[in-house]
Amino acid sequence: MSNKPARIFILGATGSVGSCALDLIRKNPETFELVGASANRSVGNLWKIVEEFEPKYLHLMDPNAYTQAKKNHPDLNLHNTMDALLEMISESSPDVVLAAMVGNIGLLPVIHSLELGLTVALANKETLVAGGFLVREILEKNNNSKILPVDSEHSAIFQCLQDNQSKDLQRIILTASGGAFRTTPLEKMLTITPQEALQHPNWDMGAKITIDSSTMMNKGLEVIEAHYLFETHYDKIEVIVHPQSIIHSMVEFLDHSIIAHLGVPDMTIPTAYALSYPNRIPLPQVPALDFASLGALTFEDPDHKKFPCLNIAYEAGRRGGLYPAVMNAANEIAVELFLTEQIKFLEIPILVESVLEIFNPEKNPNLESVLDADNWARAKASEFSPNSGTWSEL
Amino acid sequence: MSNKPARIFILGATGSVGSCALDLIRKNPETFELVGASANRSVGNLWKIVEEFEPKYLHLMDPNAYTQAKKNHPDLNLHNTMDALLEMISESSPDVVLAAMVGNIGLLPVIHSLELGLTVALANKETLVAGGFLVREILEKNNNSKILPVDSEHSAIFQCLQDNQSKDLQRIILTASGGAFRTTPLEKMLTITPQEALQHPNWDMGAKITIDSSTMMNKGLEVIEAHYLFETHYDKIEVIVHPQSIIHSMVEFLDHSIIAHLGVPDMTIPTAYALSYPNRIPLPQVPALDFASLGALTFEDPDHKKFPCLNIAYEAGRRGGLYPAVMNAANEIAVELFLTEQIKFLEIPILVESVLEIFNPEKNPNLESVLDADNWARAKASEFSPNSGTWSEL
Repeated sequence: MSNKPARIFILGATGSVGSCALDLIRKNPETFELVGASANRSVGNLWKIVEEFEPKYLHLMDPNAYTQAKKNHPDLNLHNTMDALLEMISESSPDVVLAAMVGNIGLLPVIHSLELGLTVALANKETLVAGGFLVREILEKNNNSKILPVDSEHSAIFQCLQDNQSKDLQRIILTASGGAFRTTPLEKMLTITPQEALQHPNWDMGAKITIDSSTMMNKGLEVIEAHYLFETHYDKIEVIVHPQSIIHSMVEFLDHSIIAHLGVPDMTIPTAYALSYPNRIPLPQVPALDFASLGALTFEDPDHKKFPCLNIAYEAGRRGGLYPAVMNAANEIAVELFLTEQIKFLEIPILVESVLEIFNPEKNPNLESVLDADNWARAKASEFSPNSGTWSEL
Repeated sequence: MSNKPARIFILGATGSVGSCALDLIRKNPETFELVGASANRSVGNLWKIVEEFEPKYLHLMDPNAYTQAKKNHPDLNLHNTMDALLEMISESSPDVVLAAMVGNIGLLPVIHSLELGLTVALANKETLVAGGFLVREILEKNNNSKILPVDSEHSAIFQCLQDNQSKDLQRIILTASGGAFRTTPLEKMLTITPQEALQHPNWDMGAKITIDSSTMMNKGLEVIEAHYLFETHYDKIEVIVHPQSIIHSMVEFLDHSIIAHLGVPDMTIPTAYALSYPNRIPLPQVPALDFASLGALTFEDPDHKKFPCLNIAYEAGRRGGLYPAVMNAANEIAVELFLTEQIKFLEIPILVESVLEIFNPEKNPNLESVLDADNWARAKASEFSPNSGTWSEL
C-alpha cells in the first residue's frame, strides 16, 4: 500500500452509503482522504462534512438548496449543475469516485469518471441498469477505468472471482433476503401499506431501496447489474432466497466448486473493500461472524407469483439496450406512487410491465437515448397511474 | 492450458483418492496422462490399472506382493523398496505427483519430490503432520516445488486464499462433520464398536480416516496440516462442526469478510483441482449444489469432552517439532488396536496422550529424527496397550 492516503470523491455524501464511507475516512485518516463531496439538497449534513473533512470540492444538485447555501458561504468552492459536477471530478482527479447517490442521477458522473480513466466505487445500481451497455463500451475502450462494486452482493461476487477465475465461471448465485413479505400470503399482499413495506428484516437502507427489496425489484436490478459487471449471460445468473443474509452471494465454477462470501449484514465491509481494493483494512467496528451462535442458514426459491418484478427484470435485461433503463425509470415512479399511497403494492409490477409493453426502442442507442428513454418512461408511468383510469381493471 | 496432457504419478493408486484420480484421467485423456502408479499390496487392482492406463513406472511396497507380481510379469518396469520408488519419481519427472497413500509411508516420497522441485498434490495428511517442519524448509529453499492440497478442507482454504490474499488472513475456519458420534451421549461412547465407528455420515473414505473422523483426530491432523500449508499460527485456526459437510472450510480476512468453499461432499472436486491447477476442468459426474433442496446449514462448537483428540492435536502442534510425528504414530497404532478390538474407543485419545507425555524430543530434528520418533511412538503405543497392564486403571 502506498503511504499517501487514497483521495476519495463522494457523490451522494449525505446518504447511507456516503455516511458509511465518511466513517471509514474518519477512522482511517492515513488510508483515505476526502477531496470532494456532493449532495442533493441536505445542506445541513454537507456543512458537517465540510467542518470535519474540509473537502476542496463541494456540490449541491438542487438549485434552491445551492442558492441558499452559496449565499451563506460565498467563500466555499461550491457548485451546482451537472456540468459543474463533471468538471469538479475532472479537476480533482481522485483515486476513487464513490458513486453513492440514489437513482438515475448517477449515470452521467459515473460515465464521465470512467471516460477519464478513473476508478469508480459503484453503489448506484441504476447507472449499470440504465446505462450498462454504455458502461461496458467505455470499460472496453479504456483499460485504466475500473468499477469496484459496493453493493454487498456484487462485492461478494467480485471477491469470489479473484485471480481471473471468471474464465471458469459457471453461474452467479445472487442471494436475496426475500424482503419484508417473504412469508406473507399473496392475498394479504393486496393491502400492504408503505409503513409495512419500509420494514426490512436485515439491512438498514434508504426508503427507495427498501421498497425495491420488498417487491424483489431490488434483486432484479442486481441481476442486470451483475450481467454488466461480470459480463455474464442471464441464463447463468440465479437468485436464491436466503433469509438470514449471511451469505452475500456466490459463484459456481465449472467443476461445481462454489465460492461464497459471508459476513454480518453491514455495508461497511463492501464499502471499505471498494475504497481500499486491492488491499483490505481492519474493521474492528464490524463484528466477526460467530458460527456457533448463528443458527441455521436456509435457502428457498423465489416466489415469482408474489414477486413478479424479478422476472420482469430478467425479461428487460434479456431484451437489453434501453429496456432496463425504461424498467428502472418506471419502477422509480411506481415506488414514488406507492409511497405516496397513489397505487397499491401489487400495482408496482403491473405499472412497470405496462410501460415496458408499450416501449418502442430506437436502434443504436447512445447516452442521449438512455436519458430520453428514462424521461419517456417516467412520463408514461405517471400517465398510467390509476387516477388516469388506464388500468383501473386491476 | 498447454495442449500436452499433464503427466501424473500416483502414489497409492489403488486407494480411494487414487481411484478417484484414475477416474479423472479416464474421463479426461487430453488433460491427464498416468506415467506412474504405486500401491502397497493390491496386486490385482494394480494390474487393472496397467491394462487400462499403461503407466511406464510401477511400484509395490509390500515385498511379498512384489515378489509374486514380478514372477507373473517379469517384463514390467515394476520395482520394490523405498529407494526404487524415489528413483522412479526422479526418472519419470512427472508434472504432478499425487501422494494418495495412507499413513506415514508418504513422508519420504513427498520430501523427495519437493526436493526435486516437483508439484505434489497432497492427499496424505500424515506427511505434513509428521514432517511439516521439514516440508516448509524445503518449500522455502526451492521455489519450484509446490504443494496443492487434495483434502477437501485444505483445497477449500487454498481456493478461498487465491490471489495472494494470505497477507490479510485473520483466521482459518476448518469445518468438521462431527463424525459418527456427534450426537451420541458421552456415556454411550464407552461401548462403541469398530462397526459403529466405521459409519461416516457424509464422506465415503478408508477405515483409518473414518475412525479418525469419529474421534475428531482427523480434524486435529487437519489443523496441523493447515498450520504448515498456510503458515498460520494455531491461534488463528478454528474448528467448527458443520454436520452437513456442504461448506468445506472458510477463511476470514481482517475486514471480517469470510470466503467459503461449498459443494457436494465428493472427493472428485478437490482431487481434480489439485491435478489441473491453476485451471479447472468440467466435472459433469459431480452434481451441482441445489440450494433450494439443501435444507438448513448448521454450525456448533466441537465437544472437547467427547472428542479430546482435537485438543491433543492442537497441543502437539503448538509444541511443534517432533510432537506431531509422535502423536500421529501413536494414533495410527491406537486406531489399529481399536479396529482389532484390543482397546476401547475412548482409550484412543488416552493412549495417544500417554505416549506424548513421556516423549523426550531431541533438539534440531531432521528427517531421521522424524522416522526415529515415529518408530519410538509406535513401539511405546504398543507397550501401552491394555494387555501390558500399564494403564488398566481406565
